[in-house]
Amino acid sequence: MSEEYFTTPQLPTSALEKDEGIKATTENWFEYPVKAQPHHTDYGGIVWHGTYITWMEEARVECLRSIGIDFANLVVLGCDLPVVELSIRYHRSISLGTSAIVKTRLSDTQGAKMLWDYKILTVDTQTLCLTGRVTLVGVDREKGKIMRQLPPSFKDALVKLVRN
Amino acid sequence: MSEEYFTTPQLPTSALEKDEGIKATTENWFEYPVKAQPHHTDYGGIVWHGTYITWMEEARVECLRSIGIDFANLVVLGCDLPVVELSIRYHRSISLGTSAIVKTRLSDTQGAKMLWDYKILTVDTQTLCLTGRVTLVGVDREKGKIMRQLPPSFKDALVKLVRN
Amino acid sequence: MSEEYFTTPQLPTSALEKDEGIKATTENWFEYPVKAQPHHTDYGGIVWHGTYITWMEEARVECLRSIGIDFANLVVLGCDLPVVELSIRYHRSISLGTSAIVKTRLSDTQGAKMLWDYKILTVDTQTLCLTGRVTLVGVDREKGKIMRQLPPSFKDALVKLVRN
Amino acid sequence: MSEEYFTTPQLPTSALEKDEGIKATTENWFEYPVKAQPHHTDYGGIVWHGTYITWMEEARVECLRSIGIDFANLVVLGCDLPVVELSIRYHRSISLGTSAIVKTRLSDTQGAKMLWDYKILTVDTQTLCLTGRVTLVGVDREKGKIMRQLPPSFKDALVKLVRN
Repeated sequence: MSEEYFTTPQLPTSALEKDEGIKATTENWFEYPVKAQPHHTDYGGIVWHGTYITWMEEARVECLRSIGIDFANLVVLGCDLPVVELSIRYHRSISLGTSAIVKTRLSDTQGAKMLWDYKILTVDTQTLCLTGRVTLVGVDREKGKIMRQLPPSFKDALVKLVRN
Repeated sequence: MSEEYFTTPQLPTSALEKDEGIKATTENWFEYPVKAQPHHTDYGGIVWHGTYITWMEEARVECLRSIGIDFANLVVLGCDLPVVELSIRYHRSISLGTSAIVKTRLSDTQGAKMLWDYKILTVDTQTLCLTGRVTLVGVDREKGKIMRQLPPSFKDALVKLVRN
Repeated sequence: MSEEYFTTPQLPTSALEKDEGIKATTENWFEYPVKAQPHHTDYGGIVWHGTYITWMEEARVECLRSIGIDFANLVVLGCDLPVVELSIRYHRSISLGTSAIVKTRLSDTQGAKMLWDYKILTVDTQTLCLTGRVTLVGVDREKGKIMRQLPPSFKDALVKLVRN
Repeated sequence: MSEEYFTTPQLPTSALEKDEGIKATTENWFEYPVKAQPHHTDYGGIVWHGTYITWMEEARVECLRSIGIDFANLVVLGCDLPVVELSIRYHRSISLGTSAIVKTRLSDTQGAKMLWDYKILTVDTQTLCLTGRVTLVGVDREKGKIMRQLPPSFKDALVKLVRN
């Protein structure tokens, strides 16, 4: 599709960015490569809009792994991180066979909440196809309750995401 | 999970609601029943957050069918309706085996855009689990271009969604 | 697609059918209706071959529910039923928007194993699109071990599937 | 799960292996790495049985790419390769966070049919988790008909898969 869906594509902004959580610097994106396989597409020959959620999750898990946080281990230790909020703008479609880069960064933390920003671009033309934000919250699996804070060791590790 | 993720769950509001498009009345929800099957769940024993996108799409397609619009036929006739914007708040999780109702309604149209609101509630306790909004836009498949207006016959049919 | 992929479509047969497990009678199919939604399709405008696995699982779970077995409850009680073998023949494709019926029946049990047969047909022309067989085995979730027999109460309930 | 589901796990054998199509040598496996992400799992904390179909497809597409065949391009040129037969044995489950290798090879061709064999093993312990076979057939997209032979240039390229 050659046309932009929006005239002014931009990342969702948020009042949250004003508070004292962890802040991401502009250039601090983690990059995760993907390719549009047949099972990602729909009748239109393009990536189905829900498929992007799988790519965004994979990028987030691999970003955490890059700073030494093993998500599966976190779960075993009793901390889950369910998604509580999600917003996506689809700027351009991605066709079967296209290579793309999912860019993500932790933009903020607030108590037990983490806010992740996303951009997805094609590899060859660097076309911006998607911008989004995902909010997760730390949950104590045994109690089934939202944590007041992320576990300290986890929060310490997260600092690496915004300071390097 | 017994705890609310948000203190004041509410549907996303929008400046768009002030303009002259089609308006939904409060009670005008289409209801689509779903059940949390094994393939919908993740390691937490609850519905994976991306699964809801499939339910929301199914509810929307069946809502259109209820007023005589066959989505597959629309595609054959050259009109596609890609999702261009999506926002979801996950209030409570849904466990394996749980029955739920996806409620949706067309809240507004603007040119070739359609805005759909969503609520998902469990059947037994009427617990609100998700609120969301999805924006779609009419695209001319042959030209690969966004339409200026939805096809007139399509727009005429949509009126049924907000007036009955 | 107007052409058959196989000249002699038939259900996989098996030596197992000779032994003393539960036997299905020819007419004993459970019917589960489905519809090909956009998220089920791929670039070809037809149902993606992996999608059928979700429909087959749903039909099996609902078939068990029809005789009073709640799969989610079984899991909570410590019995899981993983798939250990799967074979599918795709005879004809199913297009976006098409309604189909998933027919399934328990064809045999052997110790803790259950064998389920499948047929998927379109609603309007009764075209046979898929035949398949799925084998599941009872696993004790706590021990992580395959059971020697299915739980007696479960096996008793299964008898309803082959005798009515 | 520490127990084998089968006493004698083995690749499905086939009478087809006797005829004159392309033959794979024993060691000729293409290797495609995967990781069990949250969206791949089900309530059991393990990879859902249908997820493997996505991995097997990705491995097949990337194997073709490794010999210069771009699947998306093939589709654009009018040749589709639908799956017409699928058989899988699940030997062991794969848990959230586990890295695995999907091994695939073209074991045979017959007219317009291609037979692909699969093995999935964990990276760390080289545990065999799955064996399978997938049969695809070349279809002329415009005519909607099965080809009598795969396109010659395509067949020529396939030879690389079995001779290097």
